[in-house]
Amino acid sequence: MNQPPHDAARESALLEGCERALEQARRGPLGANPRVGAALLSPSGELLVTGFHRGARTPHAEADALLAARERGLDVHGATCIVTLEPCAHAGRTPSCARTLIDAGVARVLYAVQDPHDIAANGGALLRDAGIDARLWSDALPGSVEGDLTARAAELNRRWFQATRESRPFVTAKIAHTLDGYVAAADGTNAWITGEGARAEGHALRSTVDAIAVGTGTARADDPALTARDAHGRLAARQPRRVVIGESPLEPHSRLAKATHGPEHARPLLYRTRDIRAVFENLRAEHGVEHLLLEGGPRLISAALTLDLVDDLWIHEAPTLLGAGTPAVTGLGIGTLENRLDFDIVPESLHVSGSDLLFHAIPRARQQTPTKGE
Amino acid sequence: MNQPPHDAARESALLEGCERALEQARRGPLGANPRVGAALLSPSGELLVTGFHRGARTPHAEADALLAARERGLDVHGATCIVTLEPCAHAGRTPSCARTLIDAGVARVLYAVQDPHDIAANGGALLRDAGIDARLWSDALPGSVEGDLTARAAELNRRWFQATRESRPFVTAKIAHTLDGYVAAADGTNAWITGEGARAEGHALRSTVDAIAVGTGTARADDPALTARDAHGRLAARQPRRVVIGESPLEPHSRLAKATHGPEHARPLLYRTRDIRAVFENLRAEHGVEHLLLEGGPRLISAALTLDLVDDLWIHEAPTLLGAGTPAVTGLGIGTLENRLDFDIVPESLHVSGSDLLFHAIPRARQQTPTKGE
Repeated sequence: MNQPPHDAARESALLEGCERALEQARRGPLGANPRVGAALLSPSGELLVTGFHRGARTPHAEADALLAARERGLDVHGATCIVTLEPCAHAGRTPSCARTLIDAGVARVLYAVQDPHDIAANGGALLRDAGIDARLWSDALPGSVEGDLTARAAELNRRWFQATRESRPFVTAKIAHTLDGYVAAADGTNAWITGEGARAEGHALRSTVDAIAVGTGTARADDPALTARDAHGRLAARQPRRVVIGESPLEPHSRLAKATHGPEHARPLLYRTRDIRAVFENLRAEHGVEHLLLEGGPRLISAALTLDLVDDLWIHEAPTLLGAGTPAVTGLGIGTLENRLDFDIVPESLHVSGSDLLFHAIPRARQQTPTKGE
Repeated sequence: MNQPPHDAARESALLEGCERALEQARRGPLGANPRVGAALLSPSGELLVTGFHRGARTPHAEADALLAARERGLDVHGATCIVTLEPCAHAGRTPSCARTLIDAGVARVLYAVQDPHDIAANGGALLRDAGIDARLWSDALPGSVEGDLTARAAELNRRWFQATRESRPFVTAKIAHTLDGYVAAADGTNAWITGEGARAEGHALRSTVDAIAVGTGTARADDPALTARDAHGRLAARQPRRVVIGESPLEPHSRLAKATHGPEHARPLLYRTRDIRAVFENLRAEHGVEHLLLEGGPRLISAALTLDLVDDLWIHEAPTLLGAGTPAVTGLGIGTLENRLDFDIVPESLHVSGSDLLFHAIPRARQQTPTKGE
């Protein structure tokens, strides 16, 4: 209140930059990488450009913003970069963001949350060693608003941080169900509950994840190929690893069973167990799976939900009523409303595709620590 | 193709007007009145204003557009009015639209669909008697596009026309359920599945409908007041008629039972029958109910769905999983996917309210004539 007007304007520009960075971050997909947004301000506090991370194998948010600035011929020398996550320090799929920011000549970097990922961490230190004023939002913004902004940045990737801590992939569970919650009619028919648009989006996601898993029940009932295909049935260039989890064997003539005799990289991974946490950990440790898509059936997805292993629920809802059939989830052991599993819809993801409703929903933070065991 | 450029421009302006009128119509609510949109074009074909009908007790689309023109000081003399439904000829809650258009001095009125409602019909004839060039879109637009445009206008109010033909109210069925289709947990707890925002929207709709109906099961289980209230619990100025349908009696100390001793206009109507089609017809014929809201329970709503008596499904979906409980609909007698009940989401209605997902869905046209009897 008693600050000189110049500082008030500067502060207001920073807060606006934080809001824009958060807004950008929410545009990114849920998956192998965290959702991150960035905003570049000129030395006088003017918003230059924004950027966000579009998912694995695309530029990080800071790089995306710098790229946008270069395309528009904007001078970023002496600029302030506001970003929702600490810039990474290691060069992996993309160059280190800390290095990119140093090379670009920015004067100041404000990041909301420290990167919890061991390899990438310490981007802040690298920036400071290069003489850049790099600090957390909590060290740069007024306390009255900083807490809320930082909390929103942390919430963006709460489940990604959790998956990282638990040494397992980020898990997306896809459910294609009717308005009344069924994935198949009473006689088992389920082709197709959702329409072509939804199926095309499903295949698009398949081509970005590292692995797709189904339970043995679904493998037997649907005989799926679990490949990523385009509208003409052609295989996508990038194929996910195929995973089958459960105690029953595959049908010998099923597509997945046949693929076990194919080339090594395309062989399905068969886990004859019900310990899905151990499977998920193994998929990350042994097969580099950072984003796992669960495509059913209800038993596998329900087991993952019960163990709090679903980071992202991807709902494909057909505006259809059946009144009876196979429920999308089952056996959660919930007897009363108070014990329900709550999610938050990702509003940016909500849309109608063909006739169907598609959206992502993230598990709401639970009060208690989830059970770790079986 | 061989028309002179002047006519091509005129035709293009008319088509644009039709599109805008359709777009406007979709903004209107489903209910007692049809959804109608209008566009006014200047004599030279320029789009002046648009308008739409916001529901019972508000101006019709043509009047809304003329009002908008007056507010902006636009001259509508000699204008063309494009409207998605034949202007009404009778002065009821609002003045006759045909008369309003005549008084405003428009030269031409193009309407998509004839009004099937006996009292209001013949607005077209009234306009022609006054020397106005009033005609159907099918008589004014090129055949190549007219069919599609007229079909879209008819589809807007397909269920309203059906309710009118069947001499019953337009029926909205509200379902507040979880992502997996339950309206209550396994132990019967259901307060509250959806949040405050959704409940506030529910009360807002209650204050616009003519009646709310529940089955006796819901009356006994929930002891509802069935009144329209604001966020502070205060009664809205306009209250719907309360209706209970079913063979069981009311609990003597329930709120609805007590109200049967209250003032005549506020007494619940009790129908001790399962013949809901007869109840609906009686509500319209004897009590002037043009828009009926079904609020449950699952048995009443499922019965109405089975008899094809639901014109509008209003879904309040909480992003919550229970895995077990009371299903939102039941006993539809559907054994295989092919016999499912399909709906079309009204995209304009889709939104997140608090944490919940709200949208309207309209029954898709069925191939066969629905069963009329029990």
